[in-house]
Amino acid sequence: MDHAAGKPVDPRVLEVTKPYYTEIFGNPSSLHSWGSEPRKAIDEARTNIVDLIGAEKKEEIIFTSGGTESNNLGIKGITYRNRKKGNHIIISAIEHISILNIGKFLTKNGFRVSIIPVDDYGFVDVEALKEEITKETILISVQYANGEVGTIQPINEIGEIAHDHDIYLHADGVAAVGQVPINVEEENIDLLSISSNDLYGPKGTGALYIKHRTRLETIMHGGGQEHGWRSGTENTPNIVGMGKAAELAKLEMPKESKRLTKLRDKLINGLLSSIDESFLNGHPTKRLPNNANVRFSWIEGESMILSLNMVGIATASSSACTSKTLEPSHVLIAMGIPHEKVHGALLMTLGKSNSEEDIDYVITNLQDIVARLRAISPLTPKK
Amino acid sequence: MDHAAGKPVDPRVLEVTKPYYTEIFGNPSSLHSWGSEPRKAIDEARTNIVDLIGAEKKEEIIFTSGGTESNNLGIKGITYRNRKKGNHIIISAIEHISILNIGKFLTKNGFRVSIIPVDDYGFVDVEALKEEITKETILISVQYANGEVGTIQPINEIGEIAHDHDIYLHADGVAAVGQVPINVEEENIDLLSISSNDLYGPKGTGALYIKHRTRLETIMHGGGQEHGWRSGTENTPNIVGMGKAAELAKLEMPKESKRLTKLRDKLINGLLSSIDESFLNGHPTKRLPNNANVRFSWIEGESMILSLNMVGIATASSSACTSKTLEPSHVLIAMGIPHEKVHGALLMTLGKSNSEEDIDYVITNLQDIVARLRAISPLTPKK
Repeated sequence: MDHAAGKPVDPRVLEVTKPYYTEIFGNPSSLHSWGSEPRKAIDEARTNIVDLIGAEKKEEIIFTSGGTESNNLGIKGITYRNRKKGNHIIISAIEHISILNIGKFLTKNGFRVSIIPVDDYGFVDVEALKEEITKETILISVQYANGEVGTIQPINEIGEIAHDHDIYLHADGVAAVGQVPINVEEENIDLLSISSNDLYGPKGTGALYIKHRTRLETIMHGGGQEHGWRSGTENTPNIVGMGKAAELAKLEMPKESKRLTKLRDKLINGLLSSIDESFLNGHPTKRLPNNANVRFSWIEGESMILSLNMVGIATASSSACTSKTLEPSHVLIAMGIPHEKVHGALLMTLGKSNSEEDIDYVITNLQDIVARLRAISPLTPKK
Repeated sequence: MDHAAGKPVDPRVLEVTKPYYTEIFGNPSSLHSWGSEPRKAIDEARTNIVDLIGAEKKEEIIFTSGGTESNNLGIKGITYRNRKKGNHIIISAIEHISILNIGKFLTKNGFRVSIIPVDDYGFVDVEALKEEITKETILISVQYANGEVGTIQPINEIGEIAHDHDIYLHADGVAAVGQVPINVEEENIDLLSISSNDLYGPKGTGALYIKHRTRLETIMHGGGQEHGWRSGTENTPNIVGMGKAAELAKLEMPKESKRLTKLRDKLINGLLSSIDESFLNGHPTKRLPNNANVRFSWIEGESMILSLNMVGIATASSSACTSKTLEPSHVLIAMGIPHEKVHGALLMTLGKSNSEEDIDYVITNLQDIVARLRAISPLTPKK
């Protein structure tokens, strides 16, 4: 139930990567024939990603070390390259922590960063976004969907606004790619960040879609791999694995996303209908098929996580990468949920391995856990 | 014979990484128990690297996506963090292309970069280095050993000079770590870049040793993993694999480096003694055990590579990451070898799989190939 934090690699993915560790280990940049097979395999992986996101050609795909690097490259790459054109960028308040921190870094380095609020469901306030646009604006970065509350943004509309003003649109697609159909061409996306592990591919690998003719400044200086935009010897096995994962995601998404949506709704409805003072975070339908985020009044998310852990269920209180800090989720705060209620939020992300029985098991256990924790919570109103 | 470009992953390394793809796939930053096993495994990997390079404690090791990122983080991290102290850094003329390109980037961004020449063997001119030091100097970056000509630098001496002037020393250890014993404490190294694949670990992973109390600016903004210095979800299987590779390197280096040194000298002496007008690039003894770089007058390295390829031998003309460009090696040029002779250089890097018979096979074939290419080369002097 914590698939957003880390996924197992699909066995079919693992299988295709194997020869690239021990047999086809040449350097794709080498002149001899040992380099040509990895080179070809990497190009095939690019094509699989092109097919998954509706891009035009393989040259638009750059491999990175993961979603965080893709976000860094996409945003810093565009801003530094277009510094002479303008120094203003726009992001939303519920972006991934990497993008919020890139924003802070840019603010310290001569850029102006506007942070757009979201409504109760987590939708970006499009009117507020429009009002922030100036002649200095060079980039808008809005996530395709939020990994924590599952809300899917009106990216197409935001992209149209961006392009009407000759502004680039970067979308963080880490939580969305492979979960919902995406078409970068139709949805006006210039740059899209993708994570391999979120597609059940190997960790430590990601990709950045860079629309044809878009130019970036590199952030990783070196041997000039990936058209000079991302130096470092190519991680051939992981890239091949990510390509396979993208192929499988494209193939299986129609069926799997229906199955997950059904499980998700069973989970959400089961909890909301059987536990008093439980509320859905995010939108009921415009949300990722794998995402259920429910808050329970008067108790702490951390206590729920640990109790669920004891009965073999993994969950999260907020995005995995920051959950160790125990700070309240910046996403829920931005959605206007009061501090004391944010702490009662429980994030459950479903995946391939989850079944109907899992859902029943979680609901039953959560009913007990919530009742028990409320009984000992000083916050619970006395009856 | 092209182990510098890409190495197979050691089967023992591959074995230990397996469970981390499909079973122990939790996020090391997660609160629940699925996160604690990966967290522990990553810490063990740190300890293995500490042991290999003579560091003090595991907190000094940061995992990255490879040698290129380690170089970027080490150099940009120190320079941006110490900008107020000074804006001058010193590198050598034969650094890896990533470091030369970082130098160009820094030059464009308000820093001054001095490039120190090397002698005929590729040794950094220590006197010239001393003369470049000013009160503004904050970092010296010199590679531990050169991957192309194998020359091992007097790092200890350079480190002493750096520390006498309160300057940080970064050493690019990509070509050296695992080949020769390194002790960062004794050798005055503050930052050391390491690549996993060069230790027969998985590609796409590396590490940066950062001496206790040294502070960096991050270059990858995000969730604050790796003490905030390198954000991005940890690539657990690769990190575990790199740890195992480091453990094996430490264990097997004494024997393997002796074996490789013997093979290397057999190869070099076999070629120099049987082929007229053939010369060793780099120093005969102060060189990496796995490195043989020989130049042959009047012929092109590329023709040799392709001819050797046809008899099943992989080699390189210069560093793999730039060999596609066919530009003459900046290392050999810096060593004062004339342009027309640089093109006749052949880089052979030995590894675990190479045997005495391989060496004999290469020598015999190269004798034929050199003779044939010289017979048709317009550069060969008429007798």
